[in-house]
Amino acid sequence: MNALLDLVLIDLYDCSRERLEDADLIRQGMMAAAEIMGAEVVGDSFHTFKPWGVSGTVTIAESHLAIHTWPEYGFAAITFETCGNHMDHTEACRYLTTFFCSGYAKVTHQKRGFMEFAGADFKYKQEVG
Amino acid sequence: MNALLDLVLIDLYDCSRERLEDADLIRQGMMAAAEIMGAEVVGDSFHTFKPWGVSGTVTIAESHLAIHTWPEYGFAAITFETCGNHMDHTEACRYLTTFFCSGYAKVTHQKRGFMEFAGADFKYKQEVG
Repeated sequence: MNALLDLVLIDLYDCSRERLEDADLIRQGMMAAAEIMGAEVVGDSFHTFKPWGVSGTVTIAESHLAIHTWPEYGFAAITFETCGNHMDHTEACRYLTTFFCSGYAKVTHQKRGFMEFAGADFKYKQEVG
Repeated sequence: MNALLDLVLIDLYDCSRERLEDADLIRQGMMAAAEIMGAEVVGDSFHTFKPWGVSGTVTIAESHLAIHTWPEYGFAAITFETCGNHMDHTEACRYLTTFFCSGYAKVTHQKRGFMEFAGADFKYKQEVG
């Protein structure tokens, strides 16, 4: 049975607190991860909380990436939700683990959007409008 | 063991094609769902693809919501990622299922961001900056 979407959950522990607090830097890191993955960015939204913590989303032609950081716990929760078979989740995950100087990464991968189509030729990526 | 985040995946099948194509309407629906849930919106990013299909994210003080639509399949993949115990996922999910006139909703709920803290008093929501 085919599924439209891949969902990769990356929980990064023991990260650099400095990196987890810097929204501009985090945005750069997430954009770089999107590029490494082979995704096409179409929009983004980042926000810094008080007294610290950053939330950000990157909308891509293949779905989205998201990040939420807790500098006080050295923790970042990163999500890749993507369509298609050409996305390199592994390299993008490796990049972000290094980017945040994480001591331990818990990664899970699941499918969603199951379709009862025969074959796997359904369209997964729309053209950017 | 405590977890920082709830992840609710809502796969909506047999939806109204008209609704799945309208980015403005979808944005309104997602904003309403955030409000129903009890979330505090801090940003959003929506995009319409060619020839159809909408992707959108709503950043909230409690993490984020996301949606991706495939009008040609009558399908929408919606994600709620939230912190804290006061979020009403059930009502927000019910609202969106009705909003998209979905004939069948597949919903899963999982936890992520496990922390080895004793007690459950860690801070889950930052103040909006």
